[in-house]
Amino acid sequence: MREMHLLAYLKTGPTANHMGAWRHPDSDLRDMLDPARYEHIARVLEAGFFDGLFFADGLGLHDIYKGGFHTRLELGGQISFLDPMMVLPLMARVTRNLGIGTTLSTTFHQPYNLARTLASLDILSGGRVAWNIVTSTRNEEARNFGMPELPSRDLRYDMADEVVEACCALWECWDEGAIVADKDRGILVDSSKVRYADYKGKWFSTRGPLTIPRSPQGRPVLMQAGSSPRGRAFAARWAEMIFCPQHTKSDMQSFYADIHARMAALGRQAEDCVIMPQIEVVIGETESIAEEKASFLESLVDPELVLAAQSSALGVDLAAKVDDVSDAAEKRGTQGMQGSMDRLKSVMEKEGLTFKQAVQKSHRDMIYGTPQSVADQMQDLFESRACDGFVVSQMVFPASLEQFCRTVVPELQRRGIFRKEYRGRTLRENIRATPKG
Amino acid sequence: MREMHLLAYLKTGPTANHMGAWRHPDSDLRDMLDPARYEHIARVLEAGFFDGLFFADGLGLHDIYKGGFHTRLELGGQISFLDPMMVLPLMARVTRNLGIGTTLSTTFHQPYNLARTLASLDILSGGRVAWNIVTSTRNEEARNFGMPELPSRDLRYDMADEVVEACCALWECWDEGAIVADKDRGILVDSSKVRYADYKGKWFSTRGPLTIPRSPQGRPVLMQAGSSPRGRAFAARWAEMIFCPQHTKSDMQSFYADIHARMAALGRQAEDCVIMPQIEVVIGETESIAEEKASFLESLVDPELVLAAQSSALGVDLAAKVDDVSDAAEKRGTQGMQGSMDRLKSVMEKEGLTFKQAVQKSHRDMIYGTPQSVADQMQDLFESRACDGFVVSQMVFPASLEQFCRTVVPELQRRGIFRKEYRGRTLRENIRATPKG
Repeated sequence: MREMHLLAYLKTGPTANHMGAWRHPDSDLRDMLDPARYEHIARVLEAGFFDGLFFADGLGLHDIYKGGFHTRLELGGQISFLDPMMVLPLMARVTRNLGIGTTLSTTFHQPYNLARTLASLDILSGGRVAWNIVTSTRNEEARNFGMPELPSRDLRYDMADEVVEACCALWECWDEGAIVADKDRGILVDSSKVRYADYKGKWFSTRGPLTIPRSPQGRPVLMQAGSSPRGRAFAARWAEMIFCPQHTKSDMQSFYADIHARMAALGRQAEDCVIMPQIEVVIGETESIAEEKASFLESLVDPELVLAAQSSALGVDLAAKVDDVSDAAEKRGTQGMQGSMDRLKSVMEKEGLTFKQAVQKSHRDMIYGTPQSVADQMQDLFESRACDGFVVSQMVFPASLEQFCRTVVPELQRRGIFRKEYRGRTLRENIRATPKG
Repeated sequence: MREMHLLAYLKTGPTANHMGAWRHPDSDLRDMLDPARYEHIARVLEAGFFDGLFFADGLGLHDIYKGGFHTRLELGGQISFLDPMMVLPLMARVTRNLGIGTTLSTTFHQPYNLARTLASLDILSGGRVAWNIVTSTRNEEARNFGMPELPSRDLRYDMADEVVEACCALWECWDEGAIVADKDRGILVDSSKVRYADYKGKWFSTRGPLTIPRSPQGRPVLMQAGSSPRGRAFAARWAEMIFCPQHTKSDMQSFYADIHARMAALGRQAEDCVIMPQIEVVIGETESIAEEKASFLESLVDPELVLAAQSSALGVDLAAKVDDVSDAAEKRGTQGMQGSMDRLKSVMEKEGLTFKQAVQKSHRDMIYGTPQSVADQMQDLFESRACDGFVVSQMVFPASLEQFCRTVVPELQRRGIFRKEYRGRTLRENIRATPKG
């Protein structure tokens, strides 16, 4: 019996991807900077038996649209008001089984620092850490680190391969049981169980060892969201969880099959990686309430914010003249996400929309209905081998996820396609655990 | 009335500087990797009205001695088993007034990442963060970041000036009150209160803005421990707390006067910076018990560990032939701490010891006695303008700091030279607050 996996997609700000949800009457904006906000949602998700949560993050305010950050910042799109790494220890502390992850860029962090911080959090959380590996997609991030622009897309992934290889080498420096703490003999660590990493790459080198003992998971669960051919190759090599941007069943199915084929070519099994599309869920007592709630949420979205957010996602300023997808692809240079571009194309083709119409529409990931019909839609995708589970987005915070855990989760459990208890000790054990019989 | 300041010096490992304390029967080694250990000591220090705590840290296992990490790691010298940045959010969460700080290297971290993380922690802690700015002193750290060796000492400080300037520019990007969260108008942030940093240095540039709103302190309290002329110049410019390595009253007095002279030359007041030498305190019911306890602790120190630790501090392998201070100074290259070198010289001169004898002795910072006589010694240094307070080291963990807070703190309070309540809201307010009347 296959079981579904669920991951919550959060931001350290008012909402995740939905651009109007922060304006909803139920949205709590008083505590965006308060530790209690993040502790609360961690408890909610653990009570809902989610595999885990992760924070999307970026190293700069979005400012492709109109060449400035003002529109996006004012109108309330995705923003990280806090470094997620300062929030995750708190969320780990109030939970026991929930996985905790964040986005960390291989382009703007050194392997030694990444390996050290992630290993420390894996220890403190008892083995529950995931690393969402990104190579970063916006030149404004590069400029915060003294570079005029990002390296090319393929080069970023070549460098990312080295960063992950270097981190993995560092995570192998300590064997289990190296700390002996023998007061009488005066031996704190058995140093024969610790060795250099001696990693030498083209762009990154690190000798090691870490100062940090081996963590419960050895290395964090590696998570990835790349959609370009180079990004998929990277994911097929490394990812244990993939967060994918497709939003029709057929697009999800082709992505799912493509990743499995790529993994097989590298000698990896399908069960070595959990593939999950992102969904935004709106639940109502009846279908018509849910539908009206979804429309209400859409009415809160400022069309200019969509332009600004799509400018970041596509890597091109949509306030300037952009004719179509190929024009956008030409103008974006090394910026933008291939997944967003692919999705825009798919929406244009399948719904017969113009480029401009599709820009306003292709950002939506909403599934709405009663708990039963939401579960139906999720079950259908899951059983059609379109995915192994879902990344459920923070929308109206915290009500959307609270309601999801109270209504949809029990429905999935009743159908026998979602866990009723955590079986594993670590996140990796939980994403791989299959029920008995 | 002047009041003393107290800061605890911790490591995310068994002990701080004392090389035998981890072997003491009372030393708790079971929970070195457990969040509860760090939460407990934070509560203890807050109940003792400490200004704050900070973690010493380094980005690599010490391996100057015999060209390897084995001796130092085995025998249990200073080690960071966890990244302090993963521990500080937890310590902040269980306290309300205690300052929390850590060491972060300007040589191995980018300003944008430093500024973002520290601002986030300052927000989550309600304005209690300190940054102990170091430029790093060991080539093994450089090798973990792909460099064959450290930049020269002066160059490291020139670069550090830029890193701190860049961080300060980033911390000024957001005005207070920029988040308006107006659902009706659809305005989340008043973007006229956010601006670019546009910092351009010789080595570091960053455009900004941060994604993080202005933190309660605006910027963390800046802390520094440099002893070389270039290090003192850096401290005089930036430091609000100085952690100094001198250990005789006269050395402390000259350091204290020198820093104040350097600050005055830059237009800063003496009260803009709190100067604190490090002490290790051993308390007994009687003088003779305390003395015997101190001797017992010293008996736990392996002389080879002293050689290994002094090799790191001086930046030269003392397993090889090193004749004297000038020979050591020649052999160390760009490594080692000037403060340790100065101290060794001072111990040789004042106690008439050879280089080898002084190596074995100059690491000690112990003050021992009854609570009254410890308070006497501290009060004398404080009133002799040798310092503004003390950095009290983690020794036998957690008993030493627990006992200090239970016995010495009340004695200092009775004498009217230490606070009986926190007067400020932030760490900066607490290190500057003077009692009324």
